[in-house]
Amino acid sequence: MSEHTQIEIISIGDELLTGHIANTNAAWMADQLLRRGFRADRITTVGDDNGAIVEALAAAGRRAKTILITGGLGPTHDDVTRTAVCQFFETLLILDEDVLSAIHHLFSKRGIPMSHVNRDQALVPRKARLMPNDRGTAPGYILNNGGATFYFMPGVPHEMRRMMEEYVLPNMQGSMASRSVQNHYLCTIGIAESTLYEKIGNFEDIKRMVRVAFLPGFSGVKIRISADGDDREETARRLAEAAARVRQNIQPFIYAEEDIPLEQLLVSELTARGRTVAVAESCTGGLLAHKFTNIPGSSKCFERGVVSYSNKAKMELLSVPEPLIAANGAVSEAVVLAMAAGVRSLAATDYGMATTGIAGPDGGTAEKPVGLVYVAVASEQGIGARRHTFIGDRVSNKERFAYAALNLLWQHLREADKT
Amino acid sequence: MSEHTQIEIISIGDELLTGHIANTNAAWMADQLLRRGFRADRITTVGDDNGAIVEALAAAGRRAKTILITGGLGPTHDDVTRTAVCQFFETLLILDEDVLSAIHHLFSKRGIPMSHVNRDQALVPRKARLMPNDRGTAPGYILNNGGATFYFMPGVPHEMRRMMEEYVLPNMQGSMASRSVQNHYLCTIGIAESTLYEKIGNFEDIKRMVRVAFLPGFSGVKIRISADGDDREETARRLAEAAARVRQNIQPFIYAEEDIPLEQLLVSELTARGRTVAVAESCTGGLLAHKFTNIPGSSKCFERGVVSYSNKAKMELLSVPEPLIAANGAVSEAVVLAMAAGVRSLAATDYGMATTGIAGPDGGTAEKPVGLVYVAVASEQGIGARRHTFIGDRVSNKERFAYAALNLLWQHLREADKT
Repeated sequence: MSEHTQIEIISIGDELLTGHIANTNAAWMADQLLRRGFRADRITTVGDDNGAIVEALAAAGRRAKTILITGGLGPTHDDVTRTAVCQFFETLLILDEDVLSAIHHLFSKRGIPMSHVNRDQALVPRKARLMPNDRGTAPGYILNNGGATFYFMPGVPHEMRRMMEEYVLPNMQGSMASRSVQNHYLCTIGIAESTLYEKIGNFEDIKRMVRVAFLPGFSGVKIRISADGDDREETARRLAEAAARVRQNIQPFIYAEEDIPLEQLLVSELTARGRTVAVAESCTGGLLAHKFTNIPGSSKCFERGVVSYSNKAKMELLSVPEPLIAANGAVSEAVVLAMAAGVRSLAATDYGMATTGIAGPDGGTAEKPVGLVYVAVASEQGIGARRHTFIGDRVSNKERFAYAALNLLWQHLREADKT
Repeated sequence: MSEHTQIEIISIGDELLTGHIANTNAAWMADQLLRRGFRADRITTVGDDNGAIVEALAAAGRRAKTILITGGLGPTHDDVTRTAVCQFFETLLILDEDVLSAIHHLFSKRGIPMSHVNRDQALVPRKARLMPNDRGTAPGYILNNGGATFYFMPGVPHEMRRMMEEYVLPNMQGSMASRSVQNHYLCTIGIAESTLYEKIGNFEDIKRMVRVAFLPGFSGVKIRISADGDDREETARRLAEAAARVRQNIQPFIYAEEDIPLEQLLVSELTARGRTVAVAESCTGGLLAHKFTNIPGSSKCFERGVVSYSNKAKMELLSVPEPLIAANGAVSEAVVLAMAAGVRSLAATDYGMATTGIAGPDGGTAEKPVGLVYVAVASEQGIGARRHTFIGDRVSNKERFAYAALNLLWQHLREADKT
């Protein structure tokens, strides 16, 4: 492997080794690399430990040309990255007046007092070229050693992201040839990974042309097809041909041919048609509304949401009749249909969506187990519900329930196209 | 470092190197290890590549006694872990009849047809001891090499979690001494990491006794104090003494002394008091309700939520007067107060909460920039609002807005205790 490895990510922080947080920084960085024709070959996570950091820098420097490092530049004493940097690169810390005045400026902008430990963040390794941080106090560093370039960035996600976009990625693009990797996504929903694989059929031909990855997630399975080659046009042709072969037997399950979540497609489609939607949530508890409102511009189509967690809320806000709940239970097809119709009527939107189910860990019975959900969509074309059973914990059940509802809305939009 | 490294995690999957998903599995595993007195020393992520997997297994086997591996056991062709396992451990695949019948059972339970590629998952390395997978199709393997134990688990989170809890962790606890690490958490909210650090004061004494980590997140900064030693009682005493010293100057910002999110504390507190809450969300778009409803048992205190994304919804559902919006704008203290009072009245709950702000990336002005939020809480004791300005992207702004609202509710609950 070593001879192919060219780009590595090193994530520094005890919090990553104690499970306090997931390494979302590395995921974001890897994605940005891929979008620009680079690829991360390895991600190594070590703690706030001088020896471990120095060893990881040395090992990565032997394998890779470019090393992206995040974390450990914060104000408190457990951030030892700067000390390790000075040891590995044989340099010293000096006070940088420009950095100090930038830190002063940041604190006055947020209107909060500056603490003296923030002043220490203006201490930077003498050999480093600095990358300004306009969203936080710690600047980034660029350092070289034995033919490899090391980019040190803060661990705070939005600070790191800005620094990657403004300095690191442009610098990489200027100084090293990106592989001409081209990607094509086929985003599917409502079909299992193994069934997709079977439906696509013989992979042998396809694998001779391109690389195919199945990426399962709550929103369905995304298929990423990657091709590389020196001839950009030939690569694009090969990618398109492979995509056509993969696509042909699974077309009804593909909601997008770029890497976007289903809710982003739905916001685009609804907005393009001038349609509006409102949601009534029981078991998803606000997650469905959260997914819509994560998309910039969603206010054009998303009118409102109701988290009708109690039966009283279902009756009062959504006009679900009490006898209907008494006869069928709150988790039932009859109730989810009434909720979808109710929220559509309440909000006077084109579409009404609803969820009711049992997310767990408690509340399941033999007939209505944990993981059971009913989802419904109402529109002027009519109203429909689906029943699904998933296996998972509370949070992953909520995710699957929300995507079951979004999938049903997508199906309704396609039906509307046909008529 | 190498001589201290005892436990390593290897995460396998192209999707982790292309940024498709964050490595939440490794975070969860590291957390579980810590809770049982173990500690992960390193996390290495490699792709679905036979050479890279074999090299990572060999390197980890040289450093560590226990290696936990996830990923690459799925049904499709890009999951090459099994092949690498056979190469590294010099063994072959055989069909296991028990695994095959378990796979049959799973598909019949979910009521979906079994595909023939799932049958291949009953092919397992001959030398492996198997760990059953009652939530999915791929069993886990335990294999030994050169004094190190390798645990292979599927990458699907809820399958891996079950396997860790039922087999891997009990096996580790039976076969190796855990370090007697004890942890104490001080979870804070509403104070910056650097200010916390200053308020706590001289760390030199504390650092002689214990290890202290600052863990910043959307819900505030958690301080983890860790102590280890052979004498369990002495370690506990030392930990308690250090916790008392850290606590003394920051008491007003501590919401819990165990590692829980603020919403979990609030659900416990509200439930214990027999109090109920309803939320009215504009800029947080359902996230606040989602956070409450992620907590099992939240239905006892969380009555309903309203995502009043449009002004019409604010007026119709929350009785916010149209002239109030016209005079102040939807993002204003006047409107957030009306929303909180409105939802409390609508739901007839003890507490009403509200958010209105500008999550971005668009919609900001010089006076009302992206990152501005007003949050409010209404109760029989009165009503109050706070204004904050954060710096971040849309999704992180929504997170910070939600925690600003939760923080205000927590302050109201403490005020109620005093009266």
